[in-house]
Amino acid sequence: MNTENLKNSVGLVKPKIASFSDPLTLRCQRQIEEYDLIYETYGELNTDKSNAILICHALSGNHHAAGYHSETDKKPGWWDTCIGPGKAIDTNRFFVISLNNLGGCDGSTGPKSINPETGKAYGPDFPIMAVRDWVKSQARLADYLGVEKFAAVIGGSLGGMQALRWSIDYPERLDHCIIIASAPKLTAQNIAFNEVARQAIYRDPDFHEGRYMDFNTYPKQGLALARMLGHITYLSDDSMRQKFGRDLRTGKLNFGFDIDFEIESYLRYQGERFSDQFDANTYLLMTKALDYFDPTVDHDGDLVKTVSQANAEFLVISFSTDWRFSPERSEELVNALIAANKTVTYSELESPHGHDAFLIPMKDYINLLGGYLDRVATEGGF
Amino acid sequence: MNTENLKNSVGLVKPKIASFSDPLTLRCQRQIEEYDLIYETYGELNTDKSNAILICHALSGNHHAAGYHSETDKKPGWWDTCIGPGKAIDTNRFFVISLNNLGGCDGSTGPKSINPETGKAYGPDFPIMAVRDWVKSQARLADYLGVEKFAAVIGGSLGGMQALRWSIDYPERLDHCIIIASAPKLTAQNIAFNEVARQAIYRDPDFHEGRYMDFNTYPKQGLALARMLGHITYLSDDSMRQKFGRDLRTGKLNFGFDIDFEIESYLRYQGERFSDQFDANTYLLMTKALDYFDPTVDHDGDLVKTVSQANAEFLVISFSTDWRFSPERSEELVNALIAANKTVTYSELESPHGHDAFLIPMKDYINLLGGYLDRVATEGGF
Repeated sequence: MNTENLKNSVGLVKPKIASFSDPLTLRCQRQIEEYDLIYETYGELNTDKSNAILICHALSGNHHAAGYHSETDKKPGWWDTCIGPGKAIDTNRFFVISLNNLGGCDGSTGPKSINPETGKAYGPDFPIMAVRDWVKSQARLADYLGVEKFAAVIGGSLGGMQALRWSIDYPERLDHCIIIASAPKLTAQNIAFNEVARQAIYRDPDFHEGRYMDFNTYPKQGLALARMLGHITYLSDDSMRQKFGRDLRTGKLNFGFDIDFEIESYLRYQGERFSDQFDANTYLLMTKALDYFDPTVDHDGDLVKTVSQANAEFLVISFSTDWRFSPERSEELVNALIAANKTVTYSELESPHGHDAFLIPMKDYINLLGGYLDRVATEGGF
Repeated sequence: MNTENLKNSVGLVKPKIASFSDPLTLRCQRQIEEYDLIYETYGELNTDKSNAILICHALSGNHHAAGYHSETDKKPGWWDTCIGPGKAIDTNRFFVISLNNLGGCDGSTGPKSINPETGKAYGPDFPIMAVRDWVKSQARLADYLGVEKFAAVIGGSLGGMQALRWSIDYPERLDHCIIIASAPKLTAQNIAFNEVARQAIYRDPDFHEGRYMDFNTYPKQGLALARMLGHITYLSDDSMRQKFGRDLRTGKLNFGFDIDFEIESYLRYQGERFSDQFDANTYLLMTKALDYFDPTVDHDGDLVKTVSQANAEFLVISFSTDWRFSPERSEELVNALIAANKTVTYSELESPHGHDAFLIPMKDYINLLGGYLDRVATEGGF
């Protein structure tokens, strides 16, 4: 990191921990007696506490969304391109909260944490989280930070599902709901990809039914496979063609089972890197939260009826080559919002980057998000 | 099987074996000194030997394309819906040859066969096969059976690549080339899916770098994962939605890691069944043949130049929801054939079944294939 990067960001940030001792009753009917949430904040909460934004993370995200933890960090937080002074989510105007979800592996209570009932790590005994459970725990974090109502709740992919759930479960607690590259629920194909990823982990002999910590092992191969597969669905056919095409790693075919094509090398690298830093039980739990998400279950399967409870204004963004959560999936939601007489702005942005586009600072995207939030701030008087 | 099924098919068939002792020099520069090809034939070769059709199989296919091996067989050959008396590939008029490719695991020489140099099974030492090697070995089988020229060479998916290669390498040996649900070469995304499938096998501790037979083990889990992943790419998002949607196996969510959704159960079953009957080294070799296929490499990467050598008439068929080898991929080939001044008939058929459509007897498909071959037979005078 150089000084320029530090200056163009929120700078050095320090994660904080909020501890909760009120039991949280979960969708699965189980309770978590006490838990920690690790979070970061960027910018300042104004005096009437009206300028807060909540960032909800996707499958492998965490609380570290912007800035740097130390001057030697090579990379900033995962959404630093969008969060910072003068950026689309402008920390000169907004107070931004970003947390690691319950069940995560980056500091919030999760499978790696000690289960107070047993004195050992939860591992696979950590309860399966639903999106509504995360939202409930996020609302408690908002209480703790003195935020009664968010100017906006924002999320991409699984984060977008949390934002949608916020608008339904806490309609009075957010003015704007921004849902990016998401879907109102998964299709069978989405679930199928998640299931193969899970099976790769289950079938790794080092998984030990999730009790790998007890065995001093780790299902590294399974997690790497899961991530390789995930990566195919994050990129578009087009972006893979542009980035790798049929380029050969060594300029020739090997006629063996070593790496022939650049794309193979890329996938192996991504799998390797991810499997060194993520927890397999958390990965499993996150994919289940994705599969289970369907806010219509309490409303006769009717999406219009479901979203009719919302009070927020909506911004929905999709990307043309996203085939994991295609524009059609965003349109399902947009059409339901319109039918429910809600205020919704929708844009399908041209992008070659597939699902990953939601993390890539393309000009149209930044302008759209920044322009929308500029209006939010101006109307809010901050 | 009931008598009706037997009557509507080519009936009971017996595979035959052709042994070759002329060494075969392969694309990879290695030689196979001697080899067997297992094959079946349906119908009768006419006196001027002009009514022969060659069927080329796809990744997991084999020689048993039609009829039954015994009266207790539950299922007929893999393309029985299309091959038989009065069917699209009419065995009353055509003499149909179907073989298991070299490197296969159903009776032709392959990784499970004894390597005469070592007296042990080849295993991972079996050479990597290229599509052109298969075609060369198929031409020798044609010689052996007295077929100088095929009325048609037909294949779907990887089989279509063999048919295309036939038209280029042996332009004088086929009148018609029928390429179904195929592509002139794989994209980076196609290769990526194959690579994840291979990695699932490599990383199975029972794989032992392909020498699992020496260890009396078998990479069953890896092969099952590979097949589960493959299956997602064979079906369309639409067909999965129609077949499974978000239907729950037991009517409710389990909040655990057991099967929740029907699609999960389906994939596990498919993986289980396949991994009981297929050889992992063959699977690896077949995916490499797919990845490596690119007939333009000898022609400056120019597909028009490549196909300009062909003399056959072409029928190219694609299916609307096939995203593994989409209609656009067939159109690349069709456009090149037109530019090279070849006779080509092309149809993109509406189908909800994704890539699997090429194995499903839809009316439009049967009529198209049957109509085309009726003309071939009529013009050929048989």
